Amino acid sequence: MIDNAIINDGFWNSIRDTVVKEGIPYQWKALNDQIPDAEPSHCIRNFRIAAGKESGGHGGYVFQDSDVAKWIEGAAYTLRWHPDPTLEDIIDEAIETVAAAQQPDGYLDTYYIINGLDKRWTDLRDNHELYCAGHLIEAAVAYYQVTGKRRLLDVALKLVDHILDTFGTDEGRLPGYPGHPIIEMALMRLYDITHDPRHLELARYFIDQRGQSPLYFEAEGRRNGKRFFWEDSPFRYKYYQAHMPVRQQTEAVGHAVRAVYLYSGMADVARATGDGELAEACRRLWRNITRRRMYITGAIGSSEYGESFTFDYDLPNDTIYGETCAAIGMVFFARRMLRLEKKGEYADTMERALYNGVISGMQLDGKRFFYVNPLEVIPEACALDYNKRHVKPERQKWFGCACCPPNIIRLLASLENYICDTDQDALYVHLYLGGKIEAGGLSLNIETRYPWEGSVRMTVNVSYPVSRDIALRIPGWCGKGEWKISVNGASADIRVEDGYAHLNREWRDGDEIRLELALRPRVIRANPRVREDSGKAALQYGPLVYCLEEADNGPALNAVRLASHLNAVAKWEPDLLGGIVALETDGLRERLEGWETLLYAEREPEVEPIRLHWVPYYAWANRGVGEMRVWVRL
Amino acid sequence: MIDNAIINDGFWNSIRDTVVKEGIPYQWKALNDQIPDAEPSHCIRNFRIAAGKESGGHGGYVFQDSDVAKWIEGAAYTLRWHPDPTLEDIIDEAIETVAAAQQPDGYLDTYYIINGLDKRWTDLRDNHELYCAGHLIEAAVAYYQVTGKRRLLDVALKLVDHILDTFGTDEGRLPGYPGHPIIEMALMRLYDITHDPRHLELARYFIDQRGQSPLYFEAEGRRNGKRFFWEDSPFRYKYYQAHMPVRQQTEAVGHAVRAVYLYSGMADVARATGDGELAEACRRLWRNITRRRMYITGAIGSSEYGESFTFDYDLPNDTIYGETCAAIGMVFFARRMLRLEKKGEYADTMERALYNGVISGMQLDGKRFFYVNPLEVIPEACALDYNKRHVKPERQKWFGCACCPPNIIRLLASLENYICDTDQDALYVHLYLGGKIEAGGLSLNIETRYPWEGSVRMTVNVSYPVSRDIALRIPGWCGKGEWKISVNGASADIRVEDGYAHLNREWRDGDEIRLELALRPRVIRANPRVREDSGKAALQYGPLVYCLEEADNGPALNAVRLASHLNAVAKWEPDLLGGIVALETDGLRERLEGWETLLYAEREPEVEPIRLHWVPYYAWANRGVGEMRVWVRL
Repeated sequence: MIDNAIINDGFWNSIRDTVVKEGIPYQWKALNDQIPDAEPSHCIRNFRIAAGKESGGHGGYVFQDSDVAKWIEGAAYTLRWHPDPTLEDIIDEAIETVAAAQQPDGYLDTYYIINGLDKRWTDLRDNHELYCAGHLIEAAVAYYQVTGKRRLLDVALKLVDHILDTFGTDEGRLPGYPGHPIIEMALMRLYDITHDPRHLELARYFIDQRGQSPLYFEAEGRRNGKRFFWEDSPFRYKYYQAHMPVRQQTEAVGHAVRAVYLYSGMADVARATGDGELAEACRRLWRNITRRRMYITGAIGSSEYGESFTFDYDLPNDTIYGETCAAIGMVFFARRMLRLEKKGEYADTMERALYNGVISGMQLDGKRFFYVNPLEVIPEACALDYNKRHVKPERQKWFGCACCPPNIIRLLASLENYICDTDQDALYVHLYLGGKIEAGGLSLNIETRYPWEGSVRMTVNVSYPVSRDIALRIPGWCGKGEWKISVNGASADIRVEDGYAHLNREWRDGDEIRLELALRPRVIRANPRVREDSGKAALQYGPLVYCLEEADNGPALNAVRLASHLNAVAKWEPDLLGGIVALETDGLRERLEGWETLLYAEREPEVEPIRLHWVPYYAWANRGVGEMRVWVRL
Repeated sequence: MIDNAIINDGFWNSIRDTVVKEGIPYQWKALNDQIPDAEPSHCIRNFRIAAGKESGGHGGYVFQDSDVAKWIEGAAYTLRWHPDPTLEDIIDEAIETVAAAQQPDGYLDTYYIINGLDKRWTDLRDNHELYCAGHLIEAAVAYYQVTGKRRLLDVALKLVDHILDTFGTDEGRLPGYPGHPIIEMALMRLYDITHDPRHLELARYFIDQRGQSPLYFEAEGRRNGKRFFWEDSPFRYKYYQAHMPVRQQTEAVGHAVRAVYLYSGMADVARATGDGELAEACRRLWRNITRRRMYITGAIGSSEYGESFTFDYDLPNDTIYGETCAAIGMVFFARRMLRLEKKGEYADTMERALYNGVISGMQLDGKRFFYVNPLEVIPEACALDYNKRHVKPERQKWFGCACCPPNIIRLLASLENYICDTDQDALYVHLYLGGKIEAGGLSLNIETRYPWEGSVRMTVNVSYPVSRDIALRIPGWCGKGEWKISVNGASADIRVEDGYAHLNREWRDGDEIRLELALRPRVIRANPRVREDSGKAALQYGPLVYCLEEADNGPALNAVRLASHLNAVAKWEPDLLGGIVALETDGLRERLEGWETLLYAEREPEVEPIRLHWVPYYAWANRGVGEMRVWVRL
């Protein structure tokens, strides 16, 4: 997958440039405790201590190792589209630091190497060794794929061999599985390059062993005599998606990041094994999320408590968790469902999360990050309402638990992997980015100003005529009759299937496909069961969800309503927020005057007409602290 | 005050009868640990242990003593309007049990008597000794006023002497004050009967010493080396309203019950001393609450965190705390402001809280109680949303921290004290209840079906003509031109001042005053700054706030809207919820059909007309578990 796309895109170039210019160097410093005003990460230092090169105790979280793995992975991806020998040297150095800590038997987790190997693998529920291993594998595969260098891959393979020796249902092995999934999809990425059936089998084992009775976590908890944090919670083992075997699960529950990481691994295994039952479980969970438990931005996780899913249609905008990592996990899950079966709804959700709830996590300059991505913010409430204490009105520099910044970077740096697929039938184009796709014997040059404009021009490059489908995704946000496709200027023969428009012909060099998608401000309503969005609407323009900010519209956005005739205008604003299409609509504002001494009264608030100014949600909070809301009253 | 009213009222008789039949006997059993399926109270047992009559440790909360005091107070009041020698014997027995635990120096708090007197008065911030003393004083005054018996009053006086010896700014005394106010207003009730200036002075001392720098609680905390629960909270000493001297305070902050108990004491002292500065502080805090921090039901406390006020216009309906005790505290505060100055707004709020947020705390049969009084309930959310875990969809039998049930009982049992006032100018009628008022040389027989009907007939009983004002409150919910008053069938000469219609004449025996208030369903809107009520309206009928319940209107009440033409009808329903005026209005319901597979879409939900059925808020949750909401979409 990694070799089939080059991105050169007006929208993404600037975002990805900040990854190279800001994210990667800043985070390398952070991992090395070189940011003066931030809490130390301890991450690199832990590896040096574990390798005996430095003395001291383990610092940071029990999963701190994963930070350097995520950084290596992200940095590795950037080398592909932004070669940088100096950075490559630094990565090599980081890899040596990691490798030096590996134990003779392959084990590698600094927390237990430093604190006592006798305790390793004794707290799978809470202590993240398999999670760290998963990230290490992902980093190793990425670096190998980009550079061809095996150093970290060999470390990962040795670690996997150790895990293979340790886990399983055979006598003498631990019938356990990770409290925080990721190793499942990591092993499947490893399997993609090794084709070693043991790697597939280990992924399948972790998935199918999960939630089996008697519950491993329960027995482990008894052995440890450790308090179970979720003992009296409605969660219990749902927090870990381990309350029942995954094939029986029908609802997305518990910690949202863990959930979608698990489901991603399930989708990988279902695809690789052709396991229809597992695929069906994935579909059920997918539908439960995307039809009942996902925000319009692709954010998931309705509650800070357990950073979790709650229940159907419970989607509060102001107390949301909506962790950046969880939206990233939605992209992972969607991408894998799309590899499992080519259906537009997966790409629709992938696009939804990517253009909204994922990139909202990073400041436009790449220097600050959101952990929580709310759809409604009152700065005063963040400070004074305990239920909103996790919601921040501005992005933060770094986090003690720094999962989101390196995660967003590794996703953005590997965006090439999300654009297209091929199978025996067709070349599928999922996302419309400027650049080049090479796959299935076809090369497509793509020019577009998407998502700001709806026109996509694709030029075929072939050495000899190629006869196969080119299947273009028709976005779910685009209505019937709102798109058209021409080939070489003439209307084309099109078969629409599962959200893709298939063009079947013998492609010749220079053939030009033009896709026109109608971009216009769209008034979106939520399912009437979504309490928090009742009587409200959101504005979308193409895949982008928009919001009102105090900077443009003043405070008390709750007192603002959409006019019944919107008179909506979309306008390219090159100097606003790095260049955006801003929207304007008519609205009404309830006058606050005259209510100073009244709290409740038998009278309607007076309204005055106003012009509302909307900006893309992802770009909010780049102009100081203020109110913001996505869902606006009708 | 206690001798000037007799209640014989269609609305209140049945509610007060449950107090006598259910509340008082049930709670006496509870105090004696005789409820089989409830957590033991330990309350009476603690006193027996403290008196050396039983052995064992202290059980329950550190403020458990207050429960029996509240019960004695409530039971005492009932003797006035429902004489019961058997109950009086039980109260005497309870008083002996309490008295037996009093120490030779007057000290009386079972927690420290049992756990070690050397520690007494060392943790005023958190350990409630002065709070328990306050309740004991209130009980003693009530029992003395009703029965003339001094036994408990003498205990209280001895305790107060001990407190007088202990506290103060003089050398050798503790310059402290209670973490939980109530003793201030209790001392003022004591002062009302003793006229002992030391009692007034002690109340004033507790009020003025509060929040003085250096902060007593801070020094005390250091001495105790105890962790300060609110150390890292935005509250800190605001939780206790001790962050600054009370005369400087302008915003109602912290624990809502503590706040309004404190302000009640402040209003008492301001009245008794004529202290204009203190009165002005009371007015400021009153305005802050009633104009910015109070629910339409009179509930206060926007957040479960610290059971507290939050910030201006922050009034979430579903995560509200709205403790019954806090609404009761609002009645206390309003009553005292009304004694300070005769202004209709105080009586309006007193009525608002009483008819809505207070009595909602008790089931119609008097057997179960709400601690938290939400304005919007989704039962599923109570179970699955951590932010709403304190909100219960049905009333509970008894609470580990049983502050609310005896508190509501002592208020209902003493309702006579809230109806009227006299001063040199007039007899003021604040609340319209059937019964008899005797005050200022006038006797009024009152007949009314208020709040179900708006007609009030008052017949004057005098032995000789009396020339003075009778001042009738014109409720704030009643618009200009919506009320009229006649005397002996003829229109009367009326001077309206501060919400009261003054009738000045020489009253003769048999004079009949008729007050007609227009009762009709009123559509109430909240101040546009109240985010949670934006785009919504509430229905009021007289002083009663109404709500929609699932029992009448089906689930998904968020999908229900008010029609633009209400076609509202009020109808007496003798068999519904103990007899109520139910309201019907036109509404619209968004159809849920057709959205099964959609979460977000560019289309409006279809609506169908429905007839909405409204019941008084106080009566909600008497027909099983279901959704409820007060603020309904427009």
